[in-house]
Amino acid sequence: MKSRESVLVVGSIAFDDLEMPTGSFRDVVGGAATYSSLAASLLAPARLVGIIGDDFAESQLATLRDRGVDTEGVERVAGGKTFRWSGRYAPDLMSRVTLDTQLNVFADFRPKIPASYKGSRFVLLGNIHPALQLDVLSQVERHPPPHGLVAADTMNFWISGEPKLLADVLRRIDLLVINEEEARELSGIHNVARAAADIRARGPKQLIIKRGEYGALLFDDAGTFFCPGYPLEEVIDPTGAGDTFAGGLIGYAARHGDASPRTLRKAMFYASALGSFCVEDIGTRRLAAVGPSELAARIDAFSRLVDYGGSLAITQ
Amino acid sequence: MKSRESVLVVGSIAFDDLEMPTGSFRDVVGGAATYSSLAASLLAPARLVGIIGDDFAESQLATLRDRGVDTEGVERVAGGKTFRWSGRYAPDLMSRVTLDTQLNVFADFRPKIPASYKGSRFVLLGNIHPALQLDVLSQVERHPPPHGLVAADTMNFWISGEPKLLADVLRRIDLLVINEEEARELSGIHNVARAAADIRARGPKQLIIKRGEYGALLFDDAGTFFCPGYPLEEVIDPTGAGDTFAGGLIGYAARHGDASPRTLRKAMFYASALGSFCVEDIGTRRLAAVGPSELAARIDAFSRLVDYGGSLAITQ
Repeated sequence: MKSRESVLVVGSIAFDDLEMPTGSFRDVVGGAATYSSLAASLLAPARLVGIIGDDFAESQLATLRDRGVDTEGVERVAGGKTFRWSGRYAPDLMSRVTLDTQLNVFADFRPKIPASYKGSRFVLLGNIHPALQLDVLSQVERHPPPHGLVAADTMNFWISGEPKLLADVLRRIDLLVINEEEARELSGIHNVARAAADIRARGPKQLIIKRGEYGALLFDDAGTFFCPGYPLEEVIDPTGAGDTFAGGLIGYAARHGDASPRTLRKAMFYASALGSFCVEDIGTRRLAAVGPSELAARIDAFSRLVDYGGSLAITQ
Repeated sequence: MKSRESVLVVGSIAFDDLEMPTGSFRDVVGGAATYSSLAASLLAPARLVGIIGDDFAESQLATLRDRGVDTEGVERVAGGKTFRWSGRYAPDLMSRVTLDTQLNVFADFRPKIPASYKGSRFVLLGNIHPALQLDVLSQVERHPPPHGLVAADTMNFWISGEPKLLADVLRRIDLLVINEEEARELSGIHNVARAAADIRARGPKQLIIKRGEYGALLFDDAGTFFCPGYPLEEVIDPTGAGDTFAGGLIGYAARHGDASPRTLRKAMFYASALGSFCVEDIGTRRLAAVGPSELAARIDAFSRLVDYGGSLAITQ
């Protein structure tokens, strides 16, 4: 067993204004990097690089630190305002529309990796401009799998708007974590299995394609692996579930100091379990309250969800 | 281990006219009971009850018999025409529209269970009028799980049109196999886990909710179980995949003479594997050609798809 390693998360920190079927919620602490680092911190030391304005209270940073997130890399811009996203969800929570986006200080975000972070073997590049993702990679040491992992997220906006820079990113990362629609747009291929082969040929040897509540597929040199979504009786707010998944995944790998196919398969369950907690309340509320025993109980329930008795042999 | 039992399948036998992205195909042998019985016959003796017209060639029935399907229960109506369905699929095969439905002899279908079939311990009631499903149940002996199983399919048309008769059916079956949309319509509940609890309270102790290519959930007294869809590189024709799933499931249970939670969990993989074969060619072509070694190989690949190493324990 390898020693526990740290996770470096780079990405957005935000305030979200949410119009949910259950009501309106303003100034909800959010942002992809917030969700990812909180999830990772449940499993390994997490280091956060992001940017905030004056309006992000010191006590709100302290809440992250209390969960084990190192916030030395969070830059505060005096006189600036934190990135703000406003959205409205459909009654069934299956879709959402963006009502307003105020980039604020995030518009000039140039990630600066603190010296104490540069040795991080496990790096999660959140969904930011591919040029910034490349800039982060130029600032950190590289530790290829299985002893380290560089994972990245992206989105349709960069797939269509910055294809060349994104292609550069793909050549330099180990693991891409995207959703099904993004995989189709990136590859131009509808079939998920063939889209995965196309994307892996562009660089990342490891690829995870998320299918929302249905689960996620992992494609790597060991083959294809599927982990379902955990079936919940109540979903309150899907915001950040995908970022939580990515953070949980890399957190589990960092905890074991290992990004091998074997460990990533187990990591998928932790990623999915943490994603299932995330959606049970508004913003990061539920995620921030999860304790080790709660996590262990859900992992246990998860293992029963997929336990078929260990053998699929047929009676002849 | 219990002895191998037979599967009785009651439902539609049809000719399908298919407009697929890959071309048009006419007079394709189809119908839910055809797919289900073919799938079941790969695992256990299958008995088919349905109705056909003069246009259904004896050689086409012989093809079913060659695969191990007993066709004594197939009624031929002299001077009649076989049920015909015509549909067009979207380019991505994710949706389809019905172009034409000619019920023909199926309009007057009154299932007559041959004496030799009445002892069948494993019964699959295809998606027919609930009154006919009840009529079948009045003709067969009942063998409750785990030593027998009565499974049924239904559809939105009966959920909205025949709620009282369908409620009767639900009280008299062991297992309901429906898709996600049908589960929502039947229960009036969007959330799948809560919809499942609602439906199980209406009768069937066992419930499978199919999620198309994503997989299927089983809800029973042992808890919740998930089996993914097998990720295919090429899908040609999704027609009959759900019926194949149901037939494979009950076929596996019948082969082991056991409808216990443990056996049904394994059966889900056989159901899903056979469904994945089904969609690889037009109509029943691929399904009818699957041999035991091919099936074993896909089950083997399937077990790798979900193999996470047997333990989800965390390093402390």
